[in-house]
Amino acid sequence: MSDLISKLQWRYATKKFNPAKAVPQEKLDRILEAIRLTATSSGMQPYEVIVVSNKEVREKIVPVAWNQAQITDGSHLLVFAAWDNYTADRINAAFDLVNTERGFVNEGWENYRKMILGAYVPRDAEVNYQHAARQAYIGVGTALIAAAEEEVDATPMEGFDPKAVDEILGLDKRGLRSVVIMPLGYRADEGDWLVNLKKVRRSRENFVTEVK
Amino acid sequence: MSDLISKLQWRYATKKFNPAKAVPQEKLDRILEAIRLTATSSGMQPYEVIVVSNKEVREKIVPVAWNQAQITDGSHLLVFAAWDNYTADRINAAFDLVNTERGFVNEGWENYRKMILGAYVPRDAEVNYQHAARQAYIGVGTALIAAAEEEVDATPMEGFDPKAVDEILGLDKRGLRSVVIMPLGYRADEGDWLVNLKKVRRSRENFVTEVK
Repeated sequence: MSDLISKLQWRYATKKFNPAKAVPQEKLDRILEAIRLTATSSGMQPYEVIVVSNKEVREKIVPVAWNQAQITDGSHLLVFAAWDNYTADRINAAFDLVNTERGFVNEGWENYRKMILGAYVPRDAEVNYQHAARQAYIGVGTALIAAAEEEVDATPMEGFDPKAVDEILGLDKRGLRSVVIMPLGYRADEGDWLVNLKKVRRSRENFVTEVK
Repeated sequence: MSDLISKLQWRYATKKFNPAKAVPQEKLDRILEAIRLTATSSGMQPYEVIVVSNKEVREKIVPVAWNQAQITDGSHLLVFAAWDNYTADRINAAFDLVNTERGFVNEGWENYRKMILGAYVPRDAEVNYQHAARQAYIGVGTALIAAAEEEVDATPMEGFDPKAVDEILGLDKRGLRSVVIMPLGYRADEGDWLVNLKKVRRSRENFVTEVK
């Protein structure tokens, strides 16, 4: 079994965290670094990650997230928040950063910038947001693996009122929309109905088709 | 540096594959297994993965995918194809599988099934497809890490005509819509303009906000 497969077998959507055990800063830092490094479309990283350790703020989020106790029983809440739109400023900042970091301007890259500006900027904001939100899910998939590597438990959640979370965190004013929230912490010794149940996935035959 | 971070540093969106070097079956199998095992919303796995090794089929895809040569220079093409809708049959099959695999029926799980059926089935097909497509991106993020663990190169691509790919692969008839394609293979020794360029990401300060 590969390392990755054993990590994916180990992880599960933790239902009961141990409220007395916090994720150490260095583990949190490595999880965030993995999310930061993973791929996004055109490398634009059209989302941000908000890390809420503040207990009072997490307490405000609980009632707008189906009262899921993991939000306060964990030690940190990651909020994946996608750009509400692709604007020329945001696109140009991403392309400029590449030029600055690499120390040169490349004609092919500049042509690609023009193409992306032409395709994205006139497009409906909702279409652009949907595209940005998808990229955040690459980060979600990465975060789950990164947490498992650190033996940290993580529960990805879509069950919350995004507008309410945006308001609590002031994301709307920053042009961001929350997409997924993910408490981090450690599974409790008891009280988790899911922890001992079999992980169920469709069989390979029902999930993969080979065209040979 | 963690293993995962070094894998994410190693990987890049390969621009030139070595057409003479194929991904061995056992590596491919482990990549697919990682995708199969990763998380999706409610564990429903609302997408499938098509693995195209057939060269003629990949040649048909090239012209509807911006003529990107990686599609035929790699040895395999993964196609992530989301459900075009959440139907009662699909949802029930997923919930039934859990009952069968775990060997019991649980009242909480059955109430959750009713809630999901009530929320998803009447919803617009396009909204349901968008939700399913997001889950496929968790698989994309997982596949990139799984490939890197196997020292296999992978290039996730959104630049293709989904309807044309669906038709070539007969996905439309199966209620699937292609979302991301991903050639797998090995980077060529020369001819890749990107391989030696610095990976550029926003700084942590510009990507992560901490609410303490």
